[in-house]
Amino acid sequence: MLNNIRIVLVETAHPGNIGSVARAMKTMGLKHLYLVRPNLFPSQTADALASSAKDVLDNAVVVDALDDAIADCHIVMGTSTRSRTIPWPLLSPRELAEKARDEFNHTQVAILFGREQSGLTNEELHRCHFHVQIPANPEYSSLNIAAAVQVIAYELYFASLTESQPGSWDYPLATAKELEGFYTHLETVLINMDFLNPKAPRQLMTRLRRLFGRAQMDVMEVNILRGILAAVNNKL
Amino acid sequence: MLNNIRIVLVETAHPGNIGSVARAMKTMGLKHLYLVRPNLFPSQTADALASSAKDVLDNAVVVDALDDAIADCHIVMGTSTRSRTIPWPLLSPRELAEKARDEFNHTQVAILFGREQSGLTNEELHRCHFHVQIPANPEYSSLNIAAAVQVIAYELYFASLTESQPGSWDYPLATAKELEGFYTHLETVLINMDFLNPKAPRQLMTRLRRLFGRAQMDVMEVNILRGILAAVNNKL
Repeated sequence: MLNNIRIVLVETAHPGNIGSVARAMKTMGLKHLYLVRPNLFPSQTADALASSAKDVLDNAVVVDALDDAIADCHIVMGTSTRSRTIPWPLLSPRELAEKARDEFNHTQVAILFGREQSGLTNEELHRCHFHVQIPANPEYSSLNIAAAVQVIAYELYFASLTESQPGSWDYPLATAKELEGFYTHLETVLINMDFLNPKAPRQLMTRLRRLFGRAQMDVMEVNILRGILAAVNNKL
Repeated sequence: MLNNIRIVLVETAHPGNIGSVARAMKTMGLKHLYLVRPNLFPSQTADALASSAKDVLDNAVVVDALDDAIADCHIVMGTSTRSRTIPWPLLSPRELAEKARDEFNHTQVAILFGREQSGLTNEELHRCHFHVQIPANPEYSSLNIAAAVQVIAYELYFASLTESQPGSWDYPLATAKELEGFYTHLETVLINMDFLNPKAPRQLMTRLRRLFGRAQMDVMEVNILRGILAAVNNKL
């Protein structure tokens, strides 16, 4: 289970935090670190704070775009401390861990952590199927990023120690890339239908992303929906 | 509940870690920090890493001896990554949090964290009623001290959000100081009885500490046992 989970850090400012994240990950058996546009990496500060988890840094994947970090993932979760205008399916770290554990063996899971100062953007959060919030003191809820990774990694490791009862399903879950293809297709058709005005899109696509993300669609379902979209488009 | 919990750091080497611990504590609603022989405190590095938790540092209590930090506590727990020659009652962070939650309102709880490099000594661990072990990767289980505090504080905060069903009891729990008085009394009597050879004590007192600590005695029970010890001594 732990081998199918990746930690994705978006635009981390301080290299020391990247090192501390690597250490936190390794203590909980996580190996796969993705860095989206890190401010400075590799760095000696990161190496020093990683302590004996330098191998996690050595194997880290640096990418320019978030989509490159999550394209092949089936479940994408993003950490968020703010309430959004549109509420999103929200998990506690414990629920996140149980969800990751109870999926199938080959499900790839990405967990996103945002910038030290400002977290994830709304657009990035809309890429996520679920949001994760670490319960914290309402008067001061600002965990250091490595501390946040430690808490979530701890819940994942703890969950991995207990028996799982995986469900059974007939088709594999769709990947993030397949879902993006679907969303693009959907948006195009909605625009063609004059249902969605691209000059005043409001929150339509956001709400649709939330709906389909939460549903965790399989590849067959995506194919069916895209078949419907293609048929609609033909009729126009 | 959270107001009755103190975090005790023993001989912390790096002031930055003290600051990071303060931040981790405050994010989870913990306020009371005790420092036993810190290497350097106060310090600007600690202040910087505490971020908005400087009030926790300002109110920290610095003491010379561990006993001064725990004397008035009813439950003392110590973090340990090593297996000891004598197994001690061992809790996970979750069990620790549930135990702290389910005790009475006025129970004072101390949670001890040892040196960055070497943890708590055996003697310090024997002061604890329970040991706490954070589940971790067997190949690399070395959490940074602030990360360890974060995980345990998170479990405490999470537990504090859920309902507790406190039991009922007729007497308050004995404090650590009262227990130490009992252990000293017991040891003296055992020596007087020639049961314990102070030149070759072996692990007798250690095992007795483990037994009585685990039992979480109330003040009446301690009084009864000390009454028995006094009576034995009178007979000698």
